[in-house]
Amino acid sequence: MIIIGEKINGSIPSVAKAIEERNADWIRDLAKRQTDQGATYIDVCASVPPDVEVEALHWLIDLVQEVTDLPIAVDSPSPDNIIAAMQFCNKPGLINSVSGEGDKIEKIFPVIADTKWECIALCCDDKGIPKNPGDRLRVFGDIMEAAKKYGIAPNRLHIDPLVEMLCTTDDAMANLGTVMSTIKEQYPSIHVTGAVSNISFNLPYRKIVNLAFLVLAMNAGLDSAILDPTNRDLMGAIYATEALLGMDDYCMEYITAFREGLFGPIK
Amino acid sequence: MIIIGEKINGSIPSVAKAIEERNADWIRDLAKRQTDQGATYIDVCASVPPDVEVEALHWLIDLVQEVTDLPIAVDSPSPDNIIAAMQFCNKPGLINSVSGEGDKIEKIFPVIADTKWECIALCCDDKGIPKNPGDRLRVFGDIMEAAKKYGIAPNRLHIDPLVEMLCTTDDAMANLGTVMSTIKEQYPSIHVTGAVSNISFNLPYRKIVNLAFLVLAMNAGLDSAILDPTNRDLMGAIYATEALLGMDDYCMEYITAFREGLFGPIK
Repeated sequence: MIIIGEKINGSIPSVAKAIEERNADWIRDLAKRQTDQGATYIDVCASVPPDVEVEALHWLIDLVQEVTDLPIAVDSPSPDNIIAAMQFCNKPGLINSVSGEGDKIEKIFPVIADTKWECIALCCDDKGIPKNPGDRLRVFGDIMEAAKKYGIAPNRLHIDPLVEMLCTTDDAMANLGTVMSTIKEQYPSIHVTGAVSNISFNLPYRKIVNLAFLVLAMNAGLDSAILDPTNRDLMGAIYATEALLGMDDYCMEYITAFREGLFGPIK
Repeated sequence: MIIIGEKINGSIPSVAKAIEERNADWIRDLAKRQTDQGATYIDVCASVPPDVEVEALHWLIDLVQEVTDLPIAVDSPSPDNIIAAMQFCNKPGLINSVSGEGDKIEKIFPVIADTKWECIALCCDDKGIPKNPGDRLRVFGDIMEAAKKYGIAPNRLHIDPLVEMLCTTDDAMANLGTVMSTIKEQYPSIHVTGAVSNISFNLPYRKIVNLAFLVLAMNAGLDSAILDPTNRDLMGAIYATEALLGMDDYCMEYITAFREGLFGPIK
């Protein structure tokens, strides 16, 4: 499972404050803790006005790279700022994200074409988030056509079928399951990702909804996720689900992760 | 979801002690707490030698019925003792259990034929627990043939495909999923049940394995489960999974269960 650690995000008030005050220790600590808890990428999202975003991303990326060798997920709504911030990364990472919206793909794909950068692609376009699975798969088809054009192999793409809140969309999971399993059938080497906690928006005791969602989504093909790796039960559920899905012989990875303290009681 | 509360079981040391000492308050408390936490049935298993089992079951069933109106799941390896203990129940409950083993079915089915009693049937026979899904489905076929003979409708049966420990059986979940979904396809009104915590035997931090297993099993058709309803996260996961599987419009049951304190922080 590919874990994209979501904690360095300026839309979280405590992180916004740390960015505002240029509190380097706070950011380094978030990067370090996510690394220790088994993240694959450290997502870096400044959530500041576009004209000061590149500078903020530069500051953040430098701090993260001081304390971890993990690759960065460069996270911004602006493709131009993503391209600018890629330069600060010591090694190829992950673009977060492109979609069928505007000229994002046309700007990003040529830049990463002949690199080892990977890329999250959201199944939405200028008309918003399609309501039914067929329309999301249509956007997915457009993305794959562009990927082919630029020679970007499926295994460098993380497709996000877009996780919606369950409380207003009873078929959120069913639709998502359909989209995820269809994508995996069409391109077995592609990654399917999603922002896990979106599902529980506006519900009480969100952690249990997130956890059950993660298990069902992994069963449907999710093999990459944007989440908080310091949430120990979520990490435990990932290892348990991999074992249950037959991806972990004799539960050795589950047992090892437990022994390393990635989940379970804090020792 | 049908919850068969598993806590009154003489194979649990503290319960064995309570039975030994005829500690009535201990048993009443277990019955009361499981009732308050949303159990559908209260399982009663004495785990004492066969010659004193009926008397112990009588004592236990009387105590449970003093504090709850929930029906009893009469739990014994001996069909004769089950039949004897059924008489102590104020209302039809659940037999736990029959299987293809010995003369269990031939003894129990005629007794419950023209009643409202329901019955758990395990997919094993005199040769033990079949290793592959096909053989378990063969035992299931035999059970359904006997049920037909005695006019027991599928909706009075809870089929237990037998949950095995994951640590030695990597395909435990895959096999179980196949058996569960096949059973549900053949008889949509039948119940599929299982002892959830068996899956995590010999693994560390069992609660997270049980939880992930429960979610996957519900996705495969489990609609009845033998578990501890006082495990709040397990109960939360049941409500969350029902909502995710589209069985709970606008998450109203999830939200109501939370407000009633069935899961989440203790108020």
